[in-house]
Amino acid sequence: MSRTVYVNGEYVAEEDAKISIFDRGFLMADGVYEVTSVLGGKLIDFEGHSVRLQRSLSELDMAAPVDMDELLAIHRELVKVNEIDDGLVYLQVTRGSDGDRDFVFPDPEKTPSTLVLFTQNKPGITESPASKTGIKVISVEDQRWTRRDIKTVQLLYPSMCKMMAKAAGCQDAWLVEDGKVTEGSSNNAYIVKDGKIITREISNDILNGITRAAVLRFAREAQMIVEERSFTIEEAQQADEAFVTSATTFVLPVVEIDGAQIGDGKPGSVAPRLREIYLEESRKTAI
Amino acid sequence: MSRTVYVNGEYVAEEDAKISIFDRGFLMADGVYEVTSVLGGKLIDFEGHSVRLQRSLSELDMAAPVDMDELLAIHRELVKVNEIDDGLVYLQVTRGSDGDRDFVFPDPEKTPSTLVLFTQNKPGITESPASKTGIKVISVEDQRWTRRDIKTVQLLYPSMCKMMAKAAGCQDAWLVEDGKVTEGSSNNAYIVKDGKIITREISNDILNGITRAAVLRFAREAQMIVEERSFTIEEAQQADEAFVTSATTFVLPVVEIDGAQIGDGKPGSVAPRLREIYLEESRKTAI
Repeated sequence: MSRTVYVNGEYVAEEDAKISIFDRGFLMADGVYEVTSVLGGKLIDFEGHSVRLQRSLSELDMAAPVDMDELLAIHRELVKVNEIDDGLVYLQVTRGSDGDRDFVFPDPEKTPSTLVLFTQNKPGITESPASKTGIKVISVEDQRWTRRDIKTVQLLYPSMCKMMAKAAGCQDAWLVEDGKVTEGSSNNAYIVKDGKIITREISNDILNGITRAAVLRFAREAQMIVEERSFTIEEAQQADEAFVTSATTFVLPVVEIDGAQIGDGKPGSVAPRLREIYLEESRKTAI
Repeated sequence: MSRTVYVNGEYVAEEDAKISIFDRGFLMADGVYEVTSVLGGKLIDFEGHSVRLQRSLSELDMAAPVDMDELLAIHRELVKVNEIDDGLVYLQVTRGSDGDRDFVFPDPEKTPSTLVLFTQNKPGITESPASKTGIKVISVEDQRWTRRDIKTVQLLYPSMCKMMAKAAGCQDAWLVEDGKVTEGSSNNAYIVKDGKIITREISNDILNGITRAAVLRFAREAQMIVEERSFTIEEAQQADEAFVTSATTFVLPVVEIDGAQIGDGKPGSVAPRLREIYLEESRKTAI
């Protein structure tokens, strides 16, 4: 069955979902996005994603294409018509198309933003094999632009990182800048040492992960100690555990970094516990 | 009259020129581009642009959508049907669409690259008012990714820079990293001191400008001294002249940097001379 996707006010079959070649998302990566997980047919952390979207738009002086109630309605309609039980909704807003190419932003009164949403069906997403075995990562230099707090579609380098990881027989890459880990190529990075959860503090250097915020809140509520600071690859390799968080992988153990086994090379106790809590609590507030 | 543009093998009216929302150029800025000037109906420096395109593609492991002869034929056809005397041809290649979204590159055997070209008509492009008066620039921090030698469509920051310049009553921005100017937001940057032309050396920090290479060659042929090294904004402000080069502005004098007048605040002798030589020589080899 062909997916139904949303493009600028219309629900269309995925093969008919097109945008102008003059769209600034296509010509200039002038766009932002969000990915919201769906579990049991309900949206996880929708409010967090919608607040972050508004911040990304605001940082780039980009107009919101619809209000947040309508955005929720579109998410729900796509989940319904595509019969998504477990999966995700991808959303992208760009500065639209004024019918030509110019670095200067078009007048937002005359050029509405482009809004695109589509679903991905991922049955059993919470029971992925990787969540049982953990993943292996490599470290690479962080070559991205410096405003990683804005969730833009400038994803070429993260994409290249996934390919480098794959070529090295690993599943992902941790990015390193000035000797310290910033984040994973599409997730936030953590280590655990002596029971303490360590993850880089929020700044323009990393994305303010919606899953990160929730996981840290749950960890603190469970009386775990959280230290928000940067760390090196060497410190990570000597940690007791390592893991990543993102909207679609939730909490995922990391068992090897640059060929060095973390702990005994198997997921420890903290990451699986946090995953369990996150999934349980998030399902409760899913809408 | 509606422009005719080229999209994946077809010549179509600009309003019908569309690509899939799943195109990696739209979802991930996974694409590269070139802009070739047209003067008197002929392409300027086409070979330089085509060689650089092949390098950009090769650096990103992206397949060339057509061979360079065919690319030239498409350029010429668009110039002809759109009756471009003076203007430009814009070209973009992306990693195409496999019908969904994934960071991992699709198999190039199954997912062909996307190729889009369109023209812009710019009558009198060589006689622009800015070329007579010079432009004013501001300096801004270079926040781009670190592989600026690859001409990718990740142009959000350059676009933001043009907006910052506009807000400051200027026409462009010079980007500064570690205290030194890298380049302009969409051009290479130069200063002239005691008859010497100074411009940053080629590396991953800047684009290897096709116009830059030609202008430096012509300058050396005219017995001018060229020094390829980086410089600060302070040094630029104290220079005798400043200018930028790009495929569509050729050689353009800069008469003010961060509010400080360069020389007497009017275009000097070197930049206009280089502009003249560049235009004259480039027309000779235009095809």
